[in-house]
Amino acid sequence: MKENKGYKQSEARTVPSTVLPVAPTRGRLRPLGLDEVTTTGGFWAHRRHINGTATLDHCRDWTERAGWTGNFRAAAEGRVQRDRRGREFADSEIYKLCEAMAWQGATGTGAGTGTGAATDTDLAALAETVAAAQEPDGYLNTAFGRPGQQPRYSDLEWGHELYCYGHLIQAGVAQARARGGSEGELTKVARRAADHICATFGQGGIERVCGHPQIEAALVELARLTGEERYLHQAALFVDRRGHGTLADSEFGRAYYQDDLPVRDATVLRGHAVRALYLAAGAVDVAVETGDQELLAAVVRQWEAAVARRTYLTGGMGSHHRDESFGDDFVLPPDRAYSETCAGAASVQLSWRLLLATGEPRFADLAERTLFNVIATSPADHGRAFFYVNTLHRRHRGTEYAPDAVSPGAQSGLRAPWFPVSCCPTNVARTLAQLPAHLATADDHGVQLHQYADARIATSLTLGHGAAHAVALRVRTDYPADGNVVVRVDRSPADRPWTVSLRVPAWTAGATSWLVEPDGTRRAVAPGTAKVSRVFRPGDEIRLELPVRPRWVRADPRVDAVRGTVAVQRGPVVYCAESVDLSGGLDVDAIEVDPSAEPQDGPHTAGNAAGGMTGNTVVVAGHVTGQTPGRVSGQTPGEAPGQVSGPAPGQASAYDAVHDEPWPYRPLDTPAAPPAADPAEIVLVPYHSWANRGPSTMRVWLPAARPDRPAPPDSTG
Amino acid sequence: MKENKGYKQSEARTVPSTVLPVAPTRGRLRPLGLDEVTTTGGFWAHRRHINGTATLDHCRDWTERAGWTGNFRAAAEGRVQRDRRGREFADSEIYKLCEAMAWQGATGTGAGTGTGAATDTDLAALAETVAAAQEPDGYLNTAFGRPGQQPRYSDLEWGHELYCYGHLIQAGVAQARARGGSEGELTKVARRAADHICATFGQGGIERVCGHPQIEAALVELARLTGEERYLHQAALFVDRRGHGTLADSEFGRAYYQDDLPVRDATVLRGHAVRALYLAAGAVDVAVETGDQELLAAVVRQWEAAVARRTYLTGGMGSHHRDESFGDDFVLPPDRAYSETCAGAASVQLSWRLLLATGEPRFADLAERTLFNVIATSPADHGRAFFYVNTLHRRHRGTEYAPDAVSPGAQSGLRAPWFPVSCCPTNVARTLAQLPAHLATADDHGVQLHQYADARIATSLTLGHGAAHAVALRVRTDYPADGNVVVRVDRSPADRPWTVSLRVPAWTAGATSWLVEPDGTRRAVAPGTAKVSRVFRPGDEIRLELPVRPRWVRADPRVDAVRGTVAVQRGPVVYCAESVDLSGGLDVDAIEVDPSAEPQDGPHTAGNAAGGMTGNTVVVAGHVTGQTPGRVSGQTPGEAPGQVSGPAPGQASAYDAVHDEPWPYRPLDTPAAPPAADPAEIVLVPYHSWANRGPSTMRVWLPAARPDRPAPPDSTG
Repeated sequence: MKENKGYKQSEARTVPSTVLPVAPTRGRLRPLGLDEVTTTGGFWAHRRHINGTATLDHCRDWTERAGWTGNFRAAAEGRVQRDRRGREFADSEIYKLCEAMAWQGATGTGAGTGTGAATDTDLAALAETVAAAQEPDGYLNTAFGRPGQQPRYSDLEWGHELYCYGHLIQAGVAQARARGGSEGELTKVARRAADHICATFGQGGIERVCGHPQIEAALVELARLTGEERYLHQAALFVDRRGHGTLADSEFGRAYYQDDLPVRDATVLRGHAVRALYLAAGAVDVAVETGDQELLAAVVRQWEAAVARRTYLTGGMGSHHRDESFGDDFVLPPDRAYSETCAGAASVQLSWRLLLATGEPRFADLAERTLFNVIATSPADHGRAFFYVNTLHRRHRGTEYAPDAVSPGAQSGLRAPWFPVSCCPTNVARTLAQLPAHLATADDHGVQLHQYADARIATSLTLGHGAAHAVALRVRTDYPADGNVVVRVDRSPADRPWTVSLRVPAWTAGATSWLVEPDGTRRAVAPGTAKVSRVFRPGDEIRLELPVRPRWVRADPRVDAVRGTVAVQRGPVVYCAESVDLSGGLDVDAIEVDPSAEPQDGPHTAGNAAGGMTGNTVVVAGHVTGQTPGRVSGQTPGEAPGQVSGPAPGQASAYDAVHDEPWPYRPLDTPAAPPAADPAEIVLVPYHSWANRGPSTMRVWLPAARPDRPAPPDSTG
Repeated sequence: MKENKGYKQSEARTVPSTVLPVAPTRGRLRPLGLDEVTTTGGFWAHRRHINGTATLDHCRDWTERAGWTGNFRAAAEGRVQRDRRGREFADSEIYKLCEAMAWQGATGTGAGTGTGAATDTDLAALAETVAAAQEPDGYLNTAFGRPGQQPRYSDLEWGHELYCYGHLIQAGVAQARARGGSEGELTKVARRAADHICATFGQGGIERVCGHPQIEAALVELARLTGEERYLHQAALFVDRRGHGTLADSEFGRAYYQDDLPVRDATVLRGHAVRALYLAAGAVDVAVETGDQELLAAVVRQWEAAVARRTYLTGGMGSHHRDESFGDDFVLPPDRAYSETCAGAASVQLSWRLLLATGEPRFADLAERTLFNVIATSPADHGRAFFYVNTLHRRHRGTEYAPDAVSPGAQSGLRAPWFPVSCCPTNVARTLAQLPAHLATADDHGVQLHQYADARIATSLTLGHGAAHAVALRVRTDYPADGNVVVRVDRSPADRPWTVSLRVPAWTAGATSWLVEPDGTRRAVAPGTAKVSRVFRPGDEIRLELPVRPRWVRADPRVDAVRGTVAVQRGPVVYCAESVDLSGGLDVDAIEVDPSAEPQDGPHTAGNAAGGMTGNTVVVAGHVTGQTPGRVSGQTPGEAPGQVSGPAPGQASAYDAVHDEPWPYRPLDTPAAPPAADPAEIVLVPYHSWANRGPSTMRVWLPAARPDRPAPPDSTG
């Protein structure tokens, strides 16, 4: 990286918040804590409310029911060799749940913010259970190390021991931060574990890494919490060791766990997507704390290449089902999208760290896309079932899982209450729990708004001379349903100018955004950052008008899998066609749209009114073939037992249909079937809202009528 | 199935051939043995020569080197618990190799037909090694049952014990048939194993099935060889038991091993493709021998649905990398095609059985497509490296494997000498070894030609009254390079009419095929079967003229992954663009073709001249963008160690390219990049010939210029 690349780092921290999920000591922007930013309504507040009132309970009940919490009790009682249940990384789900409880609890018990008091009690109980299983030397893992179990660290490739520590440490840090900085039971457990790690994996110890990165970011955060440099040093060791082949080769290759190339040398994110993104996040943390510009630039470069070539329209990452990995450049099949929920959570973590380090709005752009289209998509409206995989095209109606069903296949494509590998529910929970912290930051000169939601923001600014000037902002918006964002200054130093910065999202390119200053000045603002600098008075309002309207989107022609299709995006929200909105049991594959007509806003749907913000529909012109494709349903590999038996539309006619199409390839000069099209308005719904209205098929990328095919006579009916 | 569906079965056998890979006692057509059909030159004779002179040795050396043959010696010496190497199904590779040796050896030592004498010696040595490991009660598996190993049949889901027996029995049958019917060492081992299976898995025994079907077809064939009804009965039990959930559920669901639905009830092939196809083949065998029309109809129905909706243009089956399974209907991504070589071999086996049972040419149509585009594609020209996965689009140049390298990932997309799961090389070997038997059949009234190759055919016919009338045919053709097939009658009863039937392939639809009878009569013949019935005289010639010329092919619009593209097929051979034929290091993704111009025959290439038949190129009009896409090479998950390091084109410019394309999705109204096109003739080569000229990128489905984009000014340069 060239010296003039410009990630100038400064001591930006003035008034430490106690409740920070990520607390770098240096960087362009200073994060605001969960005690400084409160979501007060709208899209995210609703989802955080569901998180606090349903999802956390759900995860606590299921980790108990699956026996994963019991593993800790069994370990404390000396019977875990016999009684242990779940996969080798099951411990980590308890830790991620603890972390989620800590952040959710930190935001209090007010309406729409979760159930802080109950959460604190639950967290304390879990912490006690975990602590009892820790061994005297700090080792803690219920799957390894006892007589009758595999020896400690005998399977670094697949054993996930350091990965589990990582989540333990993040939970311990969260507990301390949520308690205003005083260490809780989990914090103490985390410290003892970290000391054990440093003693065991330091120089001269086991000079290897874990098959699943995660420990890196956790150790840096513990160093930030405690001021203990040795944790940072150990994290840096882990980052530097990776890519030197200390892990055994496997069927997936060493790229799977990023052990193929040193982090500094890699040019693109690759291998297992969650692993790649956690590693990158940890590398940013190390780079920021050690002032390692080369390392930071390497991660930025990898992020750029992954975003340019290996990311779905939704922000989802990782296209391979086989190894949950990034594919080759531009291999982004919608119907086999993996786009794991956890990769979405990890991507948000990486983007957030890069935003803090660099101040560049492009990182908030990707975070926004990922939050609205991956994180918001995974949980069901009721918060008790989750997509593990976030496909962009579902070809057969499945049957819904019963509320007590475990999905045997993580990849079934249906929201399920729980999975044998149940990483996603707790990852959604901890992401939503800390979400308010992602909305805004501060620096010496003012406050930056990155994500838009109804919120109160209160912090203090140095304004260049080290004093603490209290400022407070009130944000009101119906975003993303509406593009107007009003920022009212509630508190401001009386005589000193400061700056409110607002991200103008990259998705506004090609349309005009407007900024109205407190004095009524109205000016067009380009994608990037819009700033208002002045002496503010309480009651001053800044108004940002973003051009939220539905628009057609097309893909780079090298994304072969979506050639000849278009998608609709409205603001940051990706839309989809869902079969429940088609009449007569038709399937989404019967749709062809006419992209020469602009998509239009449609009515709000009742089904999504609960969220208050997500019910906007879009209407596009096109036609729907009258013939049901006659899908052979119910016998697809994704269908799994444990699902409630449901209707299998199309099955009756499948055999006949098959006989009409003995071979799906034809000479080009064979006349195409006539469109047999009913001109139609086709209703699209937000992608994050799909599959909440019963079994359905769905597609994001819609086949576009070719200009050489006659358009249906009238498509406004 | 309706009674009038018409699979009339008759006792068609008149003169038993001794050398039959599949020998049904009933059915519409009687197979001809390897002593009745001899390939004498051209496409398949060349490949069988490579098989006999390189591939068999290669497989023998690698099974020895990998330790898999040694497992049998270790078992005989009581040390296999300690010394066993390879996966749980490694025994089966020795058996498949034995089977291949038997069939290849049966065709003699003549030029172009393999090395019979050496093969016999090798086979005898392997048989002795295998026999020594069999236990007194007939049990034989090197991975189970001894102290220190898992107990026998303790893991029917994944242990592959019955699967291994299946291949053992097929090898035993092959050895006997190749020896003119006298049982060899392997035949005796197979009989003892089969008796053990009947005793163990019969009624009242372990009433379950194997996770990998294969035993079914093998037991039927052993019953056919020996006349022992109990083997057939056991096979029927295995077929009927499947689909009742006797296997445990797994991450992939019970459909993975077809244990989700009874064979009779299933409407489409599903789950693991090789498993599904082997099971279907075994079910056909049971149905034919037991006269079970319902079961036969069920398999035909499944075949129809799979061919209509779940098959690649190449005939390849199975699109999922994750579980090697069929996907949902129409999920056929070219760049993530799995299309496992073994699924191709299994599909040929299924088609062959259905052809014999029904006489319908559609089964030979699919077999032809699969033989030319999957079976012929897997082995390298030199016969010592193999595709495991037969992708239809390779996006990055890889690096070739060293001759001594094991591919750690079966799915790397490059031909490799060997794999940890090395099922494909021996499956190619046994398919090519028995290939002449697939060319022709007989019935009471004549001879049917199904696949075209230079060949001699000699058999005898009953001609309706039970006598044996000797007939002989000589087939001369350059097929598939050329569409002319000349069938000369060399021997015929002097006074009795009989019939020569010729398959007119389905790919000829839309063009005219001609048949010239011995008297010079010339008539157009439609896809299906063309017949010439008469009193033949030696020297009479029948001439079939098939319209072999390159043609554009398009896919059903529901095959979303290839929307907006076209492919070229020439006769039964699918073509592809390969980057080694583009100038200036350009990538195949820079190609756009103009389908309004017909593809033309191009020159023969020197590189493929060795095969004598495969060097035809096709030239299409289009344009190639001058800009290298700047692929980020060398850091893709598929890249595996053990590959010889090679050039990584495009890497130098990757970073710059990325910066030009920060996000691959754009509003539709953003102007498209100008085509920047050089009008060009684009050379296509047979798909089966690709990747024999060094690292390359490749694609079968070629983006078609849209009519709304101006065509390049001149594309004839």
